[in-house]
Amino acid sequence: MGLELYLDLLSQPCRAIYIFAKKNRIAFELRTVDLRKGQHLSDAFAQVNPLQKVPVLKDGDFILTESVAILLYLARKYKVPDHWYPQDLQACARVDEYLAWQHTALRRNCLRALWHKVMLPVFLGEPVSPEMLATTLAELDMALQVLEGKFLQDKAFLTGSHISLADLVAITELMHPVGAGCQVFKGRPKLAAWRQRVEAAVGEVLFQEAHEVILKAKDSQPADPTLKQKMLPKVLAMIQ
Amino acid sequence: MGLELYLDLLSQPCRAIYIFAKKNRIAFELRTVDLRKGQHLSDAFAQVNPLQKVPVLKDGDFILTESVAILLYLARKYKVPDHWYPQDLQACARVDEYLAWQHTALRRNCLRALWHKVMLPVFLGEPVSPEMLATTLAELDMALQVLEGKFLQDKAFLTGSHISLADLVAITELMHPVGAGCQVFKGRPKLAAWRQRVEAAVGEVLFQEAHEVILKAKDSQPADPTLKQKMLPKVLAMIQ
Repeated sequence: MGLELYLDLLSQPCRAIYIFAKKNRIAFELRTVDLRKGQHLSDAFAQVNPLQKVPVLKDGDFILTESVAILLYLARKYKVPDHWYPQDLQACARVDEYLAWQHTALRRNCLRALWHKVMLPVFLGEPVSPEMLATTLAELDMALQVLEGKFLQDKAFLTGSHISLADLVAITELMHPVGAGCQVFKGRPKLAAWRQRVEAAVGEVLFQEAHEVILKAKDSQPADPTLKQKMLPKVLAMIQ
Repeated sequence: MGLELYLDLLSQPCRAIYIFAKKNRIAFELRTVDLRKGQHLSDAFAQVNPLQKVPVLKDGDFILTESVAILLYLARKYKVPDHWYPQDLQACARVDEYLAWQHTALRRNCLRALWHKVMLPVFLGEPVSPEMLATTLAELDMALQVLEGKFLQDKAFLTGSHISLADLVAITELMHPVGAGCQVFKGRPKLAAWRQRVEAAVGEVLFQEAHEVILKAKDSQPADPTLKQKMLPKVLAMIQ
């Protein structure tokens, strides 16, 4: 069995991996794990990843979790163009710096924005107070300021003049609040221009294809009560 | 100017970097940033890192933040022994997987355990409710189960038979709740034996030296009111 990727394009790190593999013509079998149907909580998927999370890479007997580790594995194994994860010591360190920063900053805030604004009320039928939502959006705003002020600055891409893994991980995050109806690029012309450059570098058709699911997240059908009961505590732990 | 490292050994990622540099005989100037004196909030330090966080690496004009990025930079620049960050594709991916996982799992829980149990009440004079502390310690317990069950398993070290960056990042995290008086190794013989192996691989003298500050955290002097007012919102944001 060749390379298999367990993904749901509703998940932001899954989108980064999907785009990266497609863009670099890495052949893989797509194993869709429908999060909204609770397929990640099935016994079958627990055999693949006991932590019940996507994405997962399976390459023969080798199973790997964590999106950043998966992206680096693919970049190394398939010898993709250097700009994605440069050999140059300092350029590479800049990508590593972003990939480390985002875990506890942009990641948390984009995830919370989507769940507080759309997925909790629409999909799980759990109202979110306006105060809670306002706090979440204010925290997202602060993370976006750091993204622009510390990382993007006046460069074409987050870590230099070419697209890297950092840009891919960042844009797929930002499309989470975009999917929730947040105007993350409004009043941020630098970030908006960067988004256009990333879309162009990835290719617009592929970009749209990867983001079709999240851009329709608002139309999610409500979960049935059994699934809701199973998912709610896990979701609350994930977005805390 | 050669390599400079801005550290406070009270901080767990700073300890990982300190041990890694010393163990590999990487020469550096230590720039101590005393967190309990609020030196990270000074204008002088904001010139080095506008995000007001340690650790920071300065190598000539090149400034790098984020502990994982700093460790990888040092490993590559100083060509340290392979076991720290292996060239082998799958072995390297295992280290990356741990380094990615810990950001939102062990990291958060070890930090909260220290602050909720010791630093908030003792240093900042902010009481923490027994319910809050119990929740924090229960979450830490779940993260420790994953550390043991998914990562360590029956291996000598977290990612194989030799010490890697993963072990160093993990042990320095765990010493945070240990410094707070939590019995993280009690009832976990595998994890306790792993700790002994990591200490032996690092060298006990260096290990003790790096952990002297955290093991005395309980004796921290209360912050003065001005400093407390400045630090409290930042601390609460950090440990949320």
